[in-house]
Amino acid sequence: MNKSYLNFRTDMADERVDTYKKVHNLTDIDGVIVKSSEENNIKMTTVDVTNENGEKALSKQMGTYITIESEDMQYLTEEQKQQLISKIGEQVKILVEGDKKSFMVVGLGNEYVTPDSLGPKVVKYLDITRHLLKFAKEYVDSNTTREVSAISPGVLGTTGIETAEIIESIVNKVKPDALIVIDSLVSQSVHRIGKSIQIGNRGIVPGAGVRNKRVGINQGTLKIPVIAVGVPTVVDMATITNEAIDKMIENSQKEIKEFNNDNINNNSSNSIFNILNDDNRYNMIANTLNTENYIVTPKEIDQIIDKVSEIIASSINTTITV
Amino acid sequence: MNKSYLNFRTDMADERVDTYKKVHNLTDIDGVIVKSSEENNIKMTTVDVTNENGEKALSKQMGTYITIESEDMQYLTEEQKQQLISKIGEQVKILVEGDKKSFMVVGLGNEYVTPDSLGPKVVKYLDITRHLLKFAKEYVDSNTTREVSAISPGVLGTTGIETAEIIESIVNKVKPDALIVIDSLVSQSVHRIGKSIQIGNRGIVPGAGVRNKRVGINQGTLKIPVIAVGVPTVVDMATITNEAIDKMIENSQKEIKEFNNDNINNNSSNSIFNILNDDNRYNMIANTLNTENYIVTPKEIDQIIDKVSEIIASSINTTITV
Amino acid sequence: MNKSYLNFRTDMADERVDTYKKVHNLTDIDGVIVKSSEENNIKMTTVDVTNENGEKALSKQMGTYITIESEDMQYLTEEQKQQLISKIGEQVKILVEGDKKSFMVVGLGNEYVTPDSLGPKVVKYLDITRHLLKFAKEYVDSNTTREVSAISPGVLGTTGIETAEIIESIVNKVKPDALIVIDSLVSQSVHRIGKSIQIGNRGIVPGAGVRNKRVGINQGTLKIPVIAVGVPTVVDMATITNEAIDKMIENSQKEIKEFNNDNINNNSSNSIFNILNDDNRYNMIANTLNTENYIVTPKEIDQIIDKVSEIIASSINTTITV
Amino acid sequence: MNKSYLNFRTDMADERVDTYKKVHNLTDIDGVIVKSSEENNIKMTTVDVTNENGEKALSKQMGTYITIESEDMQYLTEEQKQQLISKIGEQVKILVEGDKKSFMVVGLGNEYVTPDSLGPKVVKYLDITRHLLKFAKEYVDSNTTREVSAISPGVLGTTGIETAEIIESIVNKVKPDALIVIDSLVSQSVHRIGKSIQIGNRGIVPGAGVRNKRVGINQGTLKIPVIAVGVPTVVDMATITNEAIDKMIENSQKEIKEFNNDNINNNSSNSIFNILNDDNRYNMIANTLNTENYIVTPKEIDQIIDKVSEIIASSINTTITV
Repeated sequence: MNKSYLNFRTDMADERVDTYKKVHNLTDIDGVIVKSSEENNIKMTTVDVTNENGEKALSKQMGTYITIESEDMQYLTEEQKQQLISKIGEQVKILVEGDKKSFMVVGLGNEYVTPDSLGPKVVKYLDITRHLLKFAKEYVDSNTTREVSAISPGVLGTTGIETAEIIESIVNKVKPDALIVIDSLVSQSVHRIGKSIQIGNRGIVPGAGVRNKRVGINQGTLKIPVIAVGVPTVVDMATITNEAIDKMIENSQKEIKEFNNDNINNNSSNSIFNILNDDNRYNMIANTLNTENYIVTPKEIDQIIDKVSEIIASSINTTITV
Repeated sequence: MNKSYLNFRTDMADERVDTYKKVHNLTDIDGVIVKSSEENNIKMTTVDVTNENGEKALSKQMGTYITIESEDMQYLTEEQKQQLISKIGEQVKILVEGDKKSFMVVGLGNEYVTPDSLGPKVVKYLDITRHLLKFAKEYVDSNTTREVSAISPGVLGTTGIETAEIIESIVNKVKPDALIVIDSLVSQSVHRIGKSIQIGNRGIVPGAGVRNKRVGINQGTLKIPVIAVGVPTVVDMATITNEAIDKMIENSQKEIKEFNNDNINNNSSNSIFNILNDDNRYNMIANTLNTENYIVTPKEIDQIIDKVSEIIASSINTTITV
Repeated sequence: MNKSYLNFRTDMADERVDTYKKVHNLTDIDGVIVKSSEENNIKMTTVDVTNENGEKALSKQMGTYITIESEDMQYLTEEQKQQLISKIGEQVKILVEGDKKSFMVVGLGNEYVTPDSLGPKVVKYLDITRHLLKFAKEYVDSNTTREVSAISPGVLGTTGIETAEIIESIVNKVKPDALIVIDSLVSQSVHRIGKSIQIGNRGIVPGAGVRNKRVGINQGTLKIPVIAVGVPTVVDMATITNEAIDKMIENSQKEIKEFNNDNINNNSSNSIFNILNDDNRYNMIANTLNTENYIVTPKEIDQIIDKVSEIIASSINTTITV
Repeated sequence: MNKSYLNFRTDMADERVDTYKKVHNLTDIDGVIVKSSEENNIKMTTVDVTNENGEKALSKQMGTYITIESEDMQYLTEEQKQQLISKIGEQVKILVEGDKKSFMVVGLGNEYVTPDSLGPKVVKYLDITRHLLKFAKEYVDSNTTREVSAISPGVLGTTGIETAEIIESIVNKVKPDALIVIDSLVSQSVHRIGKSIQIGNRGIVPGAGVRNKRVGINQGTLKIPVIAVGVPTVVDMATITNEAIDKMIENSQKEIKEFNNDNINNNSSNSIFNILNDDNRYNMIANTLNTENYIVTPKEIDQIIDKVSEIIASSINTTITV
């Protein structure tokens, strides 16, 4: 197997690290530094991709990818919510950098497709200041208030225009110092949905996401720093199936052995396991199911999107004051 | 295996027939009569459960279960839509029976959970006449207009009250001649979502549905005919996984044989297949995934619900005139 | 003019007191005791109707009507919001009374008509416990948790059934100790919308509300205490017009006098003022405009409903623990 | 009074014509040609502004403004709906002109403010072809299919960016041959809401609309033809009040005369009427009410927006095929 091109089914850097280590039986990856910490039941994992080997291993550009994990965001107490908002806000603030006077928030996704509607919903809850700083200076203190603007560019299917093109046009006009891009992500595990967010400083790279993103939205294309705030909202169906087979085979090794005693020798069982336990198996499943238009998501995804988008908007709102 | 108690993962009678036949290698089931017809690209399959054996085989009460299948309801032309509305309306009319002067529509489900919001959405689009016949007779011809009322009782989790209790209370007050219950269903296949509806004359029986329905909503409990109009909106996650394993094993028999030539003999492969190919395998998967709160659904489920609920409401609206 | 039957265009008791006093040039009304207090910028006005004269004067049944006023609820800080929630929760708790073990919340209104959707939205955000206390005792402490259930019965136009009948049916089945009814109200002034709520202990009396409520929802009909929590969301169009004419005449008395110097004498101007300044003028306006289907509301009514319904639900949620 | 600068409270050209004629007691306006026709209960009024005098009289740029009126769009039969869609489609087609190969639809407005959400809702229902013509040519016939793209740019308050700037940026990138701009309008009469639409070939001129549009969206700024499709969704509150006073005075002339017999002479009554019957009166009312943030709209505005946006999108969809 080519070590460099694992076909990841997740946008989460920390999950890619785990998968890469597991597949290649490693404890460390050259070019990838992982740190974690925990406070107030909020876990923070920082994945730093520091060289080309790290880039290839994770299919992620050199940069920092922070995953913040909490209890289910649907059921946080007011206090827990405020702690989470502070934590996310702090990290966004660090990545936007102190000297950036203005930023634009871009809410990616299709608001009429529930699991893809996070971006536009975040924009809805943001405090916007650019027009006040321009047209209504009496309402804001221009010394302490960053200039915040925001757009929801829609998706290719409903606009007919590449999202990256729309963003580039508006960025060229508005000329913010930095961009914060909000997007829905794909995770490997249903259990991360509504419980984790990822913040990165390298924009959105076309990848395994639920939608096809053909053109990158990043510093390379836009010439300004691009912070990506992503939230896993769906799991790829073939991933789930693949995972189920893994676990099932694992769980049932003992039963199978007992049942088969003489019928199957250990080798043969392992052989099947080996055939299937790789990227080919995933593709076989994906082809078998023909499931590209189907998603796996929690029943309460509508409510999860509501709660998480409020939390992220509140976090970004904390960064408005310099 | 106990022939009588297949643990179906679908609410669709025609899928149960297919599964039962396949599992038991039958061409016919005693007590189950299946007929199909097709017109204007609309396929209609009628499953009549005629005796106790049929009841046990399908875990469905004696009665008639009609599945109407069309092209993807998201993309019908206006003409196709009107044909489908007529077809559904006709069947509902037959089941409600000509001498029933009044009926109440019950929109089951949680409107804030997209794939479960079909029932309340149908109610939204209905033409209601009961209050006009009572309080505004000048607007309706009481000789030709049935008395139509409708409620969306909510779900146990948001009301704290058994849905069947709410319905019973209101039915006892309003005393309609018949009930039409609208509900979201679980199917075995993602490819049926947005393309099929099921109409039955035996109400809602607690079953494999996406929500737990503890108390039946049927003629037994309510003393009036209960027509159930159901639409598959989700697929159980373990079902998908199970199906994928089936297909994968099937597809890969040849490759596995070739690859393993001497390593595995046919027997051993079949042994694993046999162990896994039954109800226990489903349960093993379900337990492994611990997925009861996750659903599989098309990305466009928001739009599908919108379109299908309009079609069903329009169908029921055609039955208002005697 | 008949003192007893002022045709009020508001559901707010405190506005009725003001209007009655103004029209009849009174400083006190026999049978009506008004108290106010203020804390944390939250103003509370209690109107106690204590005898039949008070009932006739205000067209409100004997009982207590509390108006809580705050800054615009769209823009409260988190701290202000929590203070308001506490205040409302306290008052609801007092009215529900300590010995009431269970209550049912009824969200009146049509969720598809924005200014009338408050009731159903409040229900959406409630913590429901009745089913947990019955079916999942391990999740709740039955010694300290009240039994809470909730329904959104819809409106006559979408159900065909009198709302009061639906409520009565379900109350008879569920047998709560008290009812909390949430409803949208009509105010006399656009400036109260999104800034005030009214809590009363006498249920909903058919009145000047935006919808016709034909049958009362109160202790008389339901045999249990009925707390009404109401929020003004619209202003009647004829009221606005009437008020505008009042103010305009008032403001322009001087200009008119100057302009007309010799043309009109004071008497004649006052004559027109007198003709128009009464109930007949309102009816003349209402008939002229034929405006029963039109409403006056703030542009941001969608957002106001969202915020206020969360605040009210949170307030009620504070009362769940005994 | 300055004839040239009537301060109109409506965006509808035909209402401006009526008001101008009435105020100036004219039967014709120099530079304004009005034609009407009716077919299938659909009335079409074309206002052509042909010279500078017409421009000044109506405060509308030279060009064509078509008003299409039907029965209440909420309650059209399927056949009436199709007729209306054809009619609107025809007119849009004429204005877009046959040789324009591509167009972009711009849905103006704030989708979270119901009466202002028409533009984004129309975009939701459009058939978009630009991406198919670029990336999926097998799905469309490029000889007969126009290139259609669409955006919902949001509003200044939620983006912080002038809407005209967003549009200009994207137009410069996508380079469509024409623009179709969808917007909510203000009418003088509640009775036109849900029953009329206006199509013009001169873009959106900053005007009396419900939102402040500071920069024009028209051929002058964008260098391509700009078709504006507008739908009245609200009425200005001061207009209603003003109108009510007019009608009331008119209706009550007789009663006043009788009542006052000797108290007021005809002159004095007319004097007041005259004082108030002009632009100053409107401003007096507007100042008195301080109502800029309040709107008058039908109760069913949510449903009206749904229906009308579907109709307009369907109309535009008929123009996609050359």
